[in-house]
Amino acid sequence: MRVLVTGAAGFLGRGLIGALLDDRSGRPPVDHVLAADAVPCPVRDRRVVTRTGDIADPAFAASLFEREVDLVHHLAAVVSGEAEADFDRGLHVNVDGTRTLLDACRSLRTPPRVVFASTIAVFGGRLPDVVPPDFWPRPQSSYGAEKIIGEVLVAEYTRRGFVDGIAVRLPTVAVRPGRPNAALSSFVSGIIREPLAGIDTVCPVPLDTRLWICSPGIATANLAHAGTLAAAALDGDPLVNLPGLTVTPGEMLDALERVGGRAARARVRCEPDARVTRIVGSWAGALDPARARRLGFHVDRDVDAVIAQFVRSAAST
Amino acid sequence: MRVLVTGAAGFLGRGLIGALLDDRSGRPPVDHVLAADAVPCPVRDRRVVTRTGDIADPAFAASLFEREVDLVHHLAAVVSGEAEADFDRGLHVNVDGTRTLLDACRSLRTPPRVVFASTIAVFGGRLPDVVPPDFWPRPQSSYGAEKIIGEVLVAEYTRRGFVDGIAVRLPTVAVRPGRPNAALSSFVSGIIREPLAGIDTVCPVPLDTRLWICSPGIATANLAHAGTLAAAALDGDPLVNLPGLTVTPGEMLDALERVGGRAARARVRCEPDARVTRIVGSWAGALDPARARRLGFHVDRDVDAVIAQFVRSAAST
Repeated sequence: MRVLVTGAAGFLGRGLIGALLDDRSGRPPVDHVLAADAVPCPVRDRRVVTRTGDIADPAFAASLFEREVDLVHHLAAVVSGEAEADFDRGLHVNVDGTRTLLDACRSLRTPPRVVFASTIAVFGGRLPDVVPPDFWPRPQSSYGAEKIIGEVLVAEYTRRGFVDGIAVRLPTVAVRPGRPNAALSSFVSGIIREPLAGIDTVCPVPLDTRLWICSPGIATANLAHAGTLAAAALDGDPLVNLPGLTVTPGEMLDALERVGGRAARARVRCEPDARVTRIVGSWAGALDPARARRLGFHVDRDVDAVIAQFVRSAAST
Repeated sequence: MRVLVTGAAGFLGRGLIGALLDDRSGRPPVDHVLAADAVPCPVRDRRVVTRTGDIADPAFAASLFEREVDLVHHLAAVVSGEAEADFDRGLHVNVDGTRTLLDACRSLRTPPRVVFASTIAVFGGRLPDVVPPDFWPRPQSSYGAEKIIGEVLVAEYTRRGFVDGIAVRLPTVAVRPGRPNAALSSFVSGIIREPLAGIDTVCPVPLDTRLWICSPGIATANLAHAGTLAAAALDGDPLVNLPGLTVTPGEMLDALERVGGRAARARVRCEPDARVTRIVGSWAGALDPARARRLGFHVDRDVDAVIAQFVRSAAST
């Protein structure tokens, strides 16, 4: 099976490529991964070919489909903080990039499965405590607005038969390794990762803010699962709210203390930032997971399991 | 006040320009209308200047804002039948046209009020009998998908402060004068208009299909009203489901018979067409009108009033 992953150099992209190459689900093995990103993908494997370019450039997008592709994982995106800071760049990558990629798929003989990574950030404004499946999101960020447009495009190109698409709304993925990024939710990883590394850090939202999270392991497993689901199982509705855990920063810090002691917790100062609180606080704190669970998507056991996964992965690298 | 109307040569555009020029709402009078369309707008008035071009062409869009504009009514669109038949042209006009227009507004010193004419056609799939305000539309037509993208763009450009936008979802507008058009809902006017002119016609959907309609007079009055609403009244949510009447073709034919007798009704044959039934049948049969009514939007009294309006206007032309 030939797979294209966009945003392949990112944290989720690299994790997903690893999961695809290790796949033991019984489907035809992945023998070729085209790893596309604006910067070279560092995954080293004889089955992985790296391509660098701008996904919104039609010539670059077309070059990715010179041979047939069976499955596309479209992760390439400008994250929330950058899309808010540079409006035109956000539209270019998140909207034009998605449309250019979908258009390029039309050259294939068989419509490929396209998995579009959408996000909890599409939600905003007044929300019910648990957001039902049919809820209209009113994004309060450029990133959220751009991701909704991507969802609508994927559904429409699917309805027209150009692709066999599925759009999955990922929770905030934590705990991420490495450095903070430009996502407004970067702190959700930072308040665990930094203290465990002996670094002081700041929580920029109130400690009782409801977050909807999943671990990197669950995120990549669910993306891979979205690539294997039969189209018929989606029953004409290619948009899936992925399951997650509802946690507050306060509960995450309690869990941090269980792992790292009071000294770790003491490294986190709570200093709410109005802009981050407004946008992250507008995201959904919980989504109804029933349909996603029926479709076989996974969820973390609890916040301790999420942190334990990070501690294990940090120890192994 | 200077107003730009796109899609000005269309039926709604011409009616809206008339309503704007006759406006007695007490706001500053409209002393200049820029009437933009792909074909010349036939309205003859010393206050109306016609411009022809492609709204998705950035140079043409920019030319419309060489002087300040206070209010933009964006009606230009490829209708549902044509968008379904020519996918790329639908995206070009309905998506690229809207974005190009919104981008051109960014050159103005003061963000203009932008009224975006959206549509009941955004809805599709399984719907509640009365669609609540927060319902996620799953369009089953390219036109519907493109209009949702327009709504999201208008909301986002408004949130960013580039425009002062409002998107109103119009019911099916009937009874339209003139010839059938490429809208899949064209028959909703045709089953009244043609029999009253002594012409045989076809109803391509089952007679009990629920339709959500408003008269041309109410549609133009509501578009004009959307141009005058204070931004504060929208409370951060620029998307409004306009009120309408729920009627079936059967009820419309009963009303036709009251006006035109049994001979008129006998001119309508019911021959359901699978494609039209699938798409038009996927649109909402009723929307919760509470918010729109609070905001001062109007609704027709009943289907007899809708038909009487058509009979009066046909007699006066």
